[in-house]
Amino acid sequence: MTLPTDYVAALASQHLAPLWASIRTLIPYDLPARSTVPALWRYVDLRPLLVRSGELVPIELAERRALVLCNPGHPRENLRAAPAIFIGLQLLLPGEAATNHRHTASALRFIVEGSGGHTTVDGEKLPMEPGDLILTPGGCWHEHDQQSGEPVIWMDALDVPLIYYLEASMSEAGELQHAAAGLDASATRFRRAGLVPYRELGSRDRYPLLRFPWRDTKQALQDLARGVAHDSAVHLAYVNPLTGEECLPTLGCSALMLRPGEERSFPRRSASAVLHVVEGSGDAEIDGVSFAWAEHDIVVVPTHVELTVANRSSTSAAFLFMVDDAPLQRRIRIYREFS
Amino acid sequence: MTLPTDYVAALASQHLAPLWASIRTLIPYDLPARSTVPALWRYVDLRPLLVRSGELVPIELAERRALVLCNPGHPRENLRAAPAIFIGLQLLLPGEAATNHRHTASALRFIVEGSGGHTTVDGEKLPMEPGDLILTPGGCWHEHDQQSGEPVIWMDALDVPLIYYLEASMSEAGELQHAAAGLDASATRFRRAGLVPYRELGSRDRYPLLRFPWRDTKQALQDLARGVAHDSAVHLAYVNPLTGEECLPTLGCSALMLRPGEERSFPRRSASAVLHVVEGSGDAEIDGVSFAWAEHDIVVVPTHVELTVANRSSTSAAFLFMVDDAPLQRRIRIYREFS
Amino acid sequence: MTLPTDYVAALASQHLAPLWASIRTLIPYDLPARSTVPALWRYVDLRPLLVRSGELVPIELAERRALVLCNPGHPRENLRAAPAIFIGLQLLLPGEAATNHRHTASALRFIVEGSGGHTTVDGEKLPMEPGDLILTPGGCWHEHDQQSGEPVIWMDALDVPLIYYLEASMSEAGELQHAAAGLDASATRFRRAGLVPYRELGSRDRYPLLRFPWRDTKQALQDLARGVAHDSAVHLAYVNPLTGEECLPTLGCSALMLRPGEERSFPRRSASAVLHVVEGSGDAEIDGVSFAWAEHDIVVVPTHVELTVANRSSTSAAFLFMVDDAPLQRRIRIYREFS
Amino acid sequence: MTLPTDYVAALASQHLAPLWASIRTLIPYDLPARSTVPALWRYVDLRPLLVRSGELVPIELAERRALVLCNPGHPRENLRAAPAIFIGLQLLLPGEAATNHRHTASALRFIVEGSGGHTTVDGEKLPMEPGDLILTPGGCWHEHDQQSGEPVIWMDALDVPLIYYLEASMSEAGELQHAAAGLDASATRFRRAGLVPYRELGSRDRYPLLRFPWRDTKQALQDLARGVAHDSAVHLAYVNPLTGEECLPTLGCSALMLRPGEERSFPRRSASAVLHVVEGSGDAEIDGVSFAWAEHDIVVVPTHVELTVANRSSTSAAFLFMVDDAPLQRRIRIYREFS
Repeated sequence: MTLPTDYVAALASQHLAPLWASIRTLIPYDLPARSTVPALWRYVDLRPLLVRSGELVPIELAERRALVLCNPGHPRENLRAAPAIFIGLQLLLPGEAATNHRHTASALRFIVEGSGGHTTVDGEKLPMEPGDLILTPGGCWHEHDQQSGEPVIWMDALDVPLIYYLEASMSEAGELQHAAAGLDASATRFRRAGLVPYRELGSRDRYPLLRFPWRDTKQALQDLARGVAHDSAVHLAYVNPLTGEECLPTLGCSALMLRPGEERSFPRRSASAVLHVVEGSGDAEIDGVSFAWAEHDIVVVPTHVELTVANRSSTSAAFLFMVDDAPLQRRIRIYREFS
Repeated sequence: MTLPTDYVAALASQHLAPLWASIRTLIPYDLPARSTVPALWRYVDLRPLLVRSGELVPIELAERRALVLCNPGHPRENLRAAPAIFIGLQLLLPGEAATNHRHTASALRFIVEGSGGHTTVDGEKLPMEPGDLILTPGGCWHEHDQQSGEPVIWMDALDVPLIYYLEASMSEAGELQHAAAGLDASATRFRRAGLVPYRELGSRDRYPLLRFPWRDTKQALQDLARGVAHDSAVHLAYVNPLTGEECLPTLGCSALMLRPGEERSFPRRSASAVLHVVEGSGDAEIDGVSFAWAEHDIVVVPTHVELTVANRSSTSAAFLFMVDDAPLQRRIRIYREFS
Repeated sequence: MTLPTDYVAALASQHLAPLWASIRTLIPYDLPARSTVPALWRYVDLRPLLVRSGELVPIELAERRALVLCNPGHPRENLRAAPAIFIGLQLLLPGEAATNHRHTASALRFIVEGSGGHTTVDGEKLPMEPGDLILTPGGCWHEHDQQSGEPVIWMDALDVPLIYYLEASMSEAGELQHAAAGLDASATRFRRAGLVPYRELGSRDRYPLLRFPWRDTKQALQDLARGVAHDSAVHLAYVNPLTGEECLPTLGCSALMLRPGEERSFPRRSASAVLHVVEGSGDAEIDGVSFAWAEHDIVVVPTHVELTVANRSSTSAAFLFMVDDAPLQRRIRIYREFS
Repeated sequence: MTLPTDYVAALASQHLAPLWASIRTLIPYDLPARSTVPALWRYVDLRPLLVRSGELVPIELAERRALVLCNPGHPRENLRAAPAIFIGLQLLLPGEAATNHRHTASALRFIVEGSGGHTTVDGEKLPMEPGDLILTPGGCWHEHDQQSGEPVIWMDALDVPLIYYLEASMSEAGELQHAAAGLDASATRFRRAGLVPYRELGSRDRYPLLRFPWRDTKQALQDLARGVAHDSAVHLAYVNPLTGEECLPTLGCSALMLRPGEERSFPRRSASAVLHVVEGSGDAEIDGVSFAWAEHDIVVVPTHVELTVANRSSTSAAFLFMVDDAPLQRRIRIYREFS
């Protein structure tokens, strides 16, 4: 449908666009328009570049020394791994500190390697050991430091693409936090499922548990493997123990154990996800495209795809950590699974 | 901080970006990065272009014959009036019908002029009279028709910029709905505040009330003006009567009455908004920039601005309809007001 | 099963009882043990006794001049009309005032006759016209007065049998309230279903709407009668417009319109109820026992019964107001309907 | 105020009572009317009577072989330890089974002594070891059996006084359950605070965790003692891990550790409670009355009292299990603490 030139010009001058020219792009049939593509980053390739950033960039200048995974389907300046998920790999060298700040966006850290680092969140000092999940919800002060003898590397996941898109992304710099004496206090207050400090009963607006040690998560997965049927998924969601809800408003975290030789398919769904390999190796098939993953690799799963992950070892379990935007989609009531 | 060329190339080839180069853009201090600018569209300018679209574009080819307001701060193909809000002006001529479809995005219609049109939502046929608000929540089938003698024009507001960005925006075409006999049934079931059909008590996942007639809203505003202090805002939120929550998961609707001569300031806040002038004329000042508005004009209010609206008539009340993304921001816990 | 005398004595001396002797009483099969019996109080009988109390008992000595309906199945000192519901008929003569107090129990008032009375609740002065529902939730200060020329009579319903049983029932006397200027302010703030004052959005712990005028309720019932199928109940629940929940935590209120000649059966359910006849006359059948009701009569419906009400007029609609303990039962998850 | 005899008779014949004669009893000033008195039952006294019931009463005739603690302030046939709490001590001998039934009332079992018993709840077979808490929420099928060599004794707590008072208490007998293979499955699915099976995310109406082993609770208390300030209470609430809410709708469970020599005061509050001594010995002072408690003793704490508990050992911690009706009071919004 060709419009008269003067009409087109009049529309342009008034900052108007004809909907009919774009309606099928905006709301296509069958599948949404997606720029995000399935992708895998190999840790073996990433790591040297991250290590070299440690040589090139002083932490004082960087504020955060991280390499951002930019989905090949998006322009690189977008800094999006998935539609609403930012993924970075961050390095902190011995003796360094990443200064205290806070921002609108919510973040989580999943530790990849290195021991002895700490993240301090709103005055609570949290150890960073490989496999640990640490939350820094939107608006919480946080800083990182590494005082022992080895570099620490972690994966950052943030909802900042969403917050930035909403034109609400801001930050604030703060003074060094003086962490309270109780190192990792939340883990001592919240240990056993179904038990919470009496005085915290009924609090629904707080993030009382900020660190989930991998040692415990792995143990819980192994317990679960004994508690469910042999063909059921061994899949645990990380939740706020005071509410039972996912621990961040927009991003969901979960841990998946694949028994030796196990292959597991997930329904096509409206949410996107990022997988991080904690232990083991195997394959991921995303809408028919295969990726072979090894320890610490990162896989991006777009919206509305079919996903199958498989553990190719016949003797060892594999463990995957997943971040997705399902909580956001549930909160705005667009989350769907397609059988 | 200049990086070695080979390192820059290596990052690019691996789809990586250095965070430190972009961190202040992504999470700036003091104010978020905003592309959306304050803007006003005059109905007196818009209307002729919309009427001409009726001559140029057959409804059968357009699916929806609408002109989209593209914020001057964004590229026009973005179709965003505000960060998460799409605004269109739609025309339906006598004898026309806009066919039945449904989509992931949620929409609302605010009728500007013309009488005798109908929107049918999930089998409920709803009259479209000037000032009426009609909801077509995500996933609900909806079609429009106009059988009487005059064109009908309405404003569409959708959260489609968000849903598209999340790569979850889809649509489906449907057969013509056979509307149930009970014209505008929800308005007869939900009339008085505090009274709901007994059998619907406790339903929290439905949209039971789909049409809010302007006649009633205006009356409720005039009642409220008598019920609040003289210097309090006369401002009503449209809610789901079964839950008390805003009527769409992402978009909030409200109606504001400005008494003769009244000037009202709103706190700087993290949400963006779009104002539609139902009756009257006056001014809007957005972070120091002034806009004079008249009947049916549309004003875009970016995030994090100070807003003052004023009724310049000393004898008549003015009425504004507002759409904002505060419900979305509340659900993901980033909504803030700055005193 | 006979126990040795010494054992019985030992149990008694230790304040112990053998469960096996009482288990079937405590948790019988098929139907619960019920003391509450179906009962009807005729207004024509009640009214003279209430009027006489006005001659016998000065309001200053009575604090509240009310006659309490004591279910014939219970000892009269129990003051229970139904298991958890207290029902009284209260009289206030011209020039009298029932002083300001507040208590743990929640109450509601349904006006039977007389014009010109007021109840003041937490500083809001509410007119009492026949058929109006006025809430005085637990903990709210309230006083009544009648300054015009005729006696006012209303029905009180309270959850005090429950609160007393929980040994938590207390009261406090207060100074005369100085009611704010805005007579019946909540009705001007909450008029149309789906519209609430913007600043009150999201408040979930308040009782924003304290008076439901009968004029509006009756109109809403008549509207509903047009909006539902001919064989559907015309039954409205009174709710908190900010939450959609029943307006008191323990007691539910609803209004039922019976079209001319209409007979309506309710499922057997775990809740008990009290019916008050606002207009009309008809019959109630409760587990096979019939009661003929006329204007202002009160009928008690025990738990777990089948109830049918019928309007015996072929020309006029009848209107019933119902109070039940379903909200309490829902909150503690024991509410059931049996099909 | 003396009423004329004929008037009194007329009221009686109409099943009416004058409110003014009872108003201060029903809603007293300052403190509620309370029949429940502070009381202690010594296990050393209870146990022999319970053992003797094992000799006197065959389980087949008893259905449940339990002795009920009847508060001395109430008539013994009331079977109330506290206003809304039934407490029994139950005995099951080797080889015995207490048959499958379910009822409206909710129950919990706290194991006192004996090993090898099981409770099967809705097909899940749960071990009963000393100190374990086992839930049998209202409506869930449950049976008990003891197949190993020693008697098992537990404390039952039910909300049956409330349910009976509401005239909604019923039971149903069922066939023997065939417990699913997975012994104690819920404990393998819910182990670590903050981790829940992915597929159970968002379920809010289930009781997914039915057994809380004492071994874990004790460990969690000892962890908490390290995680809180020295003068803070070491007090854990038992919650539903999918919701963060107390695990039964009416009854709250918690576990308190008293460090050696620790004395702890609780605010006066509207709820009543029952304490069971898991380990240790000490004192309880209730509104000035002292009780010396030892292992397995049971103490009843009325509403609106001041409570202080003290561990009189200078070397060992003491552990108390508490049941209260605070969840009920919170749900109906009457729960209060007085500072």
